[in-house]
Amino acid sequence: MRIEVINTGTELLLGNVTNTHLGFLAQSLFDLGLRIERQVTVPDGAAITEAFTEAMTRADLIIVTGGLGPTSDDITREAVSGVFGLKLILHPEILDGITAKFAERKFVMNDLQQAQAMVPEGGVVLDNKFGTAPGLIVRKDKTVAILLPGPPSELRPMWEDEALPWLRKEFAHQLPPVHEITLRILGLGETRVQILVEDKIKALGAVEIGYCARPGEVDLRLIGLDKNLLAKATEIVRTKLADAIYAEGSTTMEETVVRLARAAGKTVATAESCTGGLVASRITNVSHSSEMFRYGWVTYANEAKITELGVSPELLEKHGAVSPEVVIAMAEGALRGSGADWAVAVTGIAGPTGGTSEKPVGLVYFGLAGTDGQRQVVEKNLALERQTFKAMASQIALDLIRRALIS
Amino acid sequence: MRIEVINTGTELLLGNVTNTHLGFLAQSLFDLGLRIERQVTVPDGAAITEAFTEAMTRADLIIVTGGLGPTSDDITREAVSGVFGLKLILHPEILDGITAKFAERKFVMNDLQQAQAMVPEGGVVLDNKFGTAPGLIVRKDKTVAILLPGPPSELRPMWEDEALPWLRKEFAHQLPPVHEITLRILGLGETRVQILVEDKIKALGAVEIGYCARPGEVDLRLIGLDKNLLAKATEIVRTKLADAIYAEGSTTMEETVVRLARAAGKTVATAESCTGGLVASRITNVSHSSEMFRYGWVTYANEAKITELGVSPELLEKHGAVSPEVVIAMAEGALRGSGADWAVAVTGIAGPTGGTSEKPVGLVYFGLAGTDGQRQVVEKNLALERQTFKAMASQIALDLIRRALIS
Repeated sequence: MRIEVINTGTELLLGNVTNTHLGFLAQSLFDLGLRIERQVTVPDGAAITEAFTEAMTRADLIIVTGGLGPTSDDITREAVSGVFGLKLILHPEILDGITAKFAERKFVMNDLQQAQAMVPEGGVVLDNKFGTAPGLIVRKDKTVAILLPGPPSELRPMWEDEALPWLRKEFAHQLPPVHEITLRILGLGETRVQILVEDKIKALGAVEIGYCARPGEVDLRLIGLDKNLLAKATEIVRTKLADAIYAEGSTTMEETVVRLARAAGKTVATAESCTGGLVASRITNVSHSSEMFRYGWVTYANEAKITELGVSPELLEKHGAVSPEVVIAMAEGALRGSGADWAVAVTGIAGPTGGTSEKPVGLVYFGLAGTDGQRQVVEKNLALERQTFKAMASQIALDLIRRALIS
Repeated sequence: MRIEVINTGTELLLGNVTNTHLGFLAQSLFDLGLRIERQVTVPDGAAITEAFTEAMTRADLIIVTGGLGPTSDDITREAVSGVFGLKLILHPEILDGITAKFAERKFVMNDLQQAQAMVPEGGVVLDNKFGTAPGLIVRKDKTVAILLPGPPSELRPMWEDEALPWLRKEFAHQLPPVHEITLRILGLGETRVQILVEDKIKALGAVEIGYCARPGEVDLRLIGLDKNLLAKATEIVRTKLADAIYAEGSTTMEETVVRLARAAGKTVATAESCTGGLVASRITNVSHSSEMFRYGWVTYANEAKITELGVSPELLEKHGAVSPEVVIAMAEGALRGSGADWAVAVTGIAGPTGGTSEKPVGLVYFGLAGTDGQRQVVEKNLALERQTFKAMASQIALDLIRRALIS
């Protein structure tokens, strides 16, 4: 079944509102083994007819969002009926329902509202519990159109409670069970991952591979109809990439770290310079992180490293704040001060200024110290825009803790 | 000028990633007086050719995002060259640049990377400061195509620094002068703002008013062709809303705080419990924040509040960690420990667990202490999902500092 989505709304094309309908519908359809093959956004008004006519040449199911309201630019109902060649018929019981809703909310109803009670011949009406405009399912030969209201608070319950059950029932025989797994990988580039695994997975047969790259990391997505084949492909990736895989699905690095630490009964402390509290903030984004995170320091100034973490002024003088020696001293200070099992420290030059030829903008040291005596330093050069720099540095710091927790 | 956007990426159609490119490009183009007339999302691979061919029948400017990377599903470059009938030519200097980037980051380069150095005949190359794949501007007769990389951290600076200046220069004669100002307001709801200013602004004449609400705050946008009228409207808002306006345009609260503190030669310290480092992280997102921010504490556990901030165990025992007494003791501890001019402290119950009937999830205290002797406590109830709670609490904490700096 080929599915296309048409989102109508001038506000989407002006950038005032982000399209969250697409992701919502995509995830819901994916669970049925269905995929959206194309999505288009058009302004309110006449463009909807053109987009719908075009979609009809390709799609079996067309989902249209928005344009069902009572104002002059709400023409989805008319446009779809027109393209399908179906008459619009007034449904008095819908009009009664709308009238009742207006009475209940003590709003004044006007003639324009009547448009919302018009239904194309043979159309299925979808009840709108949180607004006035009902949704519609309309059929013409083999093409099905589902028309949904624009506000997410109306669309989502209508989709879940009305449209989805209808789809399940109507297309039960056509719904293939698609399986998917996403593996999140840090420290290997997209092409490196491809070289390591793609040939071996392709040799298995029908498993689709997708990559989504972000600074310093990549999500590898495997999709297939055969669950066993997908399991084999996953095994190949797990064997080849091993510890570089930090999470599955949409799980974040911080969720992995909090889960591992809680499971091991270990606590973690942070001592941050250039990441400025982001590592701590990401950890504390996770529920129940208070079980494994109790102390964090943001020692942005050298003086703070001395007074709060006990880094010696001589060490700072001799090696500079951005050095392997200082980052380990910071981690050790955090370990002592917090009584945690592990401490991670970060110091670097976020930029845009403050770099030298010897220590350029982007240079970062990561230090890990454990009560078991383990000490580790990692050096990276992340010459990136400031916030991306912080994001990537915080990811590497969290990964150091993750690796300590699984080793 | 008719503009269409093609977003490529299977992850967008699977609902794994939300399309933020459209809003970003739309807002940026709007500032030039231009609007996007249609947007389409297609999966990685062959569908891009079909979508591009279709867009060419309507649009003067086609912006394509994604599909410029080195892997097998990245075919935007080839597809656009194919539709335009232009040869792809290897640019050795781009390849050298990519090679240098790999060397700098100590990554291993492979043959696949070479695809990124191919440029359609006559194409303008857009430098990618934060990744390897360059962007491209390609022309065929009257149609212009701008090809941008998919990762937002690469697309946004490339758009701002390279594509936009090119557009401005090339299409200067076609761009109508629209003026716009956005005023960012904290602590007043959308309808309250509307009641305070809308009638007065509408009485002026042709000024368009827009609202963009977020939890606890609202952006008020004024748009007009007449610069003087817009200045008058702005004056009305400034008079009515005064200190509630924390920034203009896309300036953030943290940028305002850093600017004000630097201008006043004041320093600020943070002591965070429930925001977990987010206040510090937001301050340190701003360049040159090191001039005004030197010390931050994340005292997530009670013990940390005692050992790091000198909060007395008796005070914690008597009033509990989430109390006006403790938040002021935290701020005072941070003030003493840092030697800063101002310290802000936050303690609250982020949830989802940990609330009681007396102190429910969402209860937060904010404390401000200054070397001038000023002490201030603010209580809020922010019963929100954890990350929204943290975001809103950090905003209020930063606003306390802002108000101290302008008073």
